[in-house]
Amino acid sequence: MRALVFNNSLQYQIDYPVPHISEGDALVRITHAGICNTDLEITKGYMGFQGVLGHEFVGVVEECSDSNIKGKRVVGEINVPCGQCMYCTSNMTNHCTKRTVLGILNRDGAFADYTSLPLDRLHVVPDSVSNEEAVFVEPLAAAFEILEQIKIVPDDKVCVLGDGKLGLLIAQVLSLTGCNLTAVGNHSEKLSILDEIGIKTKLLSSFRENGFDIVVDCTGSSSGIKTAFQIVKARGKVVLKTTVAKKGLIDTNAIVIKELELIGSRCGPFDKAIEAIAARNIDLYPMISREFSIEEGIKAFQYASKKDSLKVILKIV
Amino acid sequence: MRALVFNNSLQYQIDYPVPHISEGDALVRITHAGICNTDLEITKGYMGFQGVLGHEFVGVVEECSDSNIKGKRVVGEINVPCGQCMYCTSNMTNHCTKRTVLGILNRDGAFADYTSLPLDRLHVVPDSVSNEEAVFVEPLAAAFEILEQIKIVPDDKVCVLGDGKLGLLIAQVLSLTGCNLTAVGNHSEKLSILDEIGIKTKLLSSFRENGFDIVVDCTGSSSGIKTAFQIVKARGKVVLKTTVAKKGLIDTNAIVIKELELIGSRCGPFDKAIEAIAARNIDLYPMISREFSIEEGIKAFQYASKKDSLKVILKIV
Repeated sequence: MRALVFNNSLQYQIDYPVPHISEGDALVRITHAGICNTDLEITKGYMGFQGVLGHEFVGVVEECSDSNIKGKRVVGEINVPCGQCMYCTSNMTNHCTKRTVLGILNRDGAFADYTSLPLDRLHVVPDSVSNEEAVFVEPLAAAFEILEQIKIVPDDKVCVLGDGKLGLLIAQVLSLTGCNLTAVGNHSEKLSILDEIGIKTKLLSSFRENGFDIVVDCTGSSSGIKTAFQIVKARGKVVLKTTVAKKGLIDTNAIVIKELELIGSRCGPFDKAIEAIAARNIDLYPMISREFSIEEGIKAFQYASKKDSLKVILKIV
Repeated sequence: MRALVFNNSLQYQIDYPVPHISEGDALVRITHAGICNTDLEITKGYMGFQGVLGHEFVGVVEECSDSNIKGKRVVGEINVPCGQCMYCTSNMTNHCTKRTVLGILNRDGAFADYTSLPLDRLHVVPDSVSNEEAVFVEPLAAAFEILEQIKIVPDDKVCVLGDGKLGLLIAQVLSLTGCNLTAVGNHSEKLSILDEIGIKTKLLSSFRENGFDIVVDCTGSSSGIKTAFQIVKARGKVVLKTTVAKKGLIDTNAIVIKELELIGSRCGPFDKAIEAIAARNIDLYPMISREFSIEEGIKAFQYASKKDSLKVILKIV
């Protein structure tokens, strides 16, 4: 099959083996897949991953033991847990220490004609959600994870730092709480997507506010964390949302002195993301920068790496 | 008056001016004071402080406008807030952005014959608490701050990393919750203080456990934070308790991937610390390494800097 494979360098291959599926697995024919910053970080060495990249996808179940799901259009959760460890038996399967992660850890991903996942990782996509929108379910679920972890009320003064793909999704999700929200970034054209839907935005260069109850850092840089520590209130919360290949210097004294709470946040609830898209609560089309075919995959990665790019979609079928 | 002054270097002075007191202030004649790691860090450049060092003390009120407190033996809270800002009016005076901090920030400290503090910062010491014990009230209050911030229940598996002065206090405070506690450090003779009172201890070199619900880092080093990230459960809590002059490299990816909660923790409730000492719940005498006179202050700092030292007390009266 066709596949985008990372093996110290990114390669487009036409003869990659179709995944073998075991009992309980589904073979999914990928229709569309999205390039995420994590994919870009992996090509810089993050996670030391080798294999087929890609973890944001929508596809059609082509083979599986459950006739109810065969032929259905699905998205898939990316963590595949062991089912038996302390985390798996306490409803924290995403933290299973033996997990594989689609296109990230010991499991081939979705930038290919086919991928495989256990049936219980799949979520059927309602007809009202397009393929392009469905590609956003995984990162949108990650945005909703914040609301699983902390309570945000209308009185809260909240700042989202970073106007990349994830930042724009998070700003949209947090705005659903009715909180006093400001989204801050470096790119006026990206922020304008939020302006359009009534979310207050600021360019970082002219941003002087502080005293935020909650700051979400999705800048993917240690300078973002530094800014977060400056603008958050004492005893406030800083949510860290992005992983980066490079470790950064962090001022732990600021955490102690301001008695901050730093909260790491990763994968989230797919059902809430699908519902929000179906309910037209999240505006996704303005976030699509460009579509490429899988044959153009390497070009697509180069395009996705550009500072002004947002979501780049690979059309695979 | 006699004073230990830091001014790029530590100096013992005999003619330092006695503090001027304003309306609402008390002039306190210091009897005993304790050297804290923060004092040692300040002499390495932390906070850029210049002036009389020292913030752990017990003394007698010699001058003030309130006749009820004159002549009383007192300890003092170290943060002196403005009383008017957002933090002061919302019961977070310790976070007042205009605060001065005794011997740490824009306010002369207690390694001197006299110090001054507003009356409302003082707590009268019960007769059952000795001067040596009273010196521990400030750091012990900081240990109790953890219980103000997070709930610890008997089912929790908790690790205190670091067997310095603060680590030993924190281990004793957390053991009051009945949690499943392990204290870990590099010094068997320091850990033996905890062994004596029935707290489980381990030398770091032979420590292989993980899966802790809560890890408190009081190592004052970034290697301590690294260990904390390794041994804490996914979605667990890491409490940061120590400030250091040197910023460290922190693996923020671990925070995101394990969805950790990092909680900075600083000054705490004096009333709970005084109560715990008076109730004989905390064993303090084994933690005193040595007493020095204020004239021997520089020698006392050198002694306090040694790896095997615990609390060094300056006897001032």
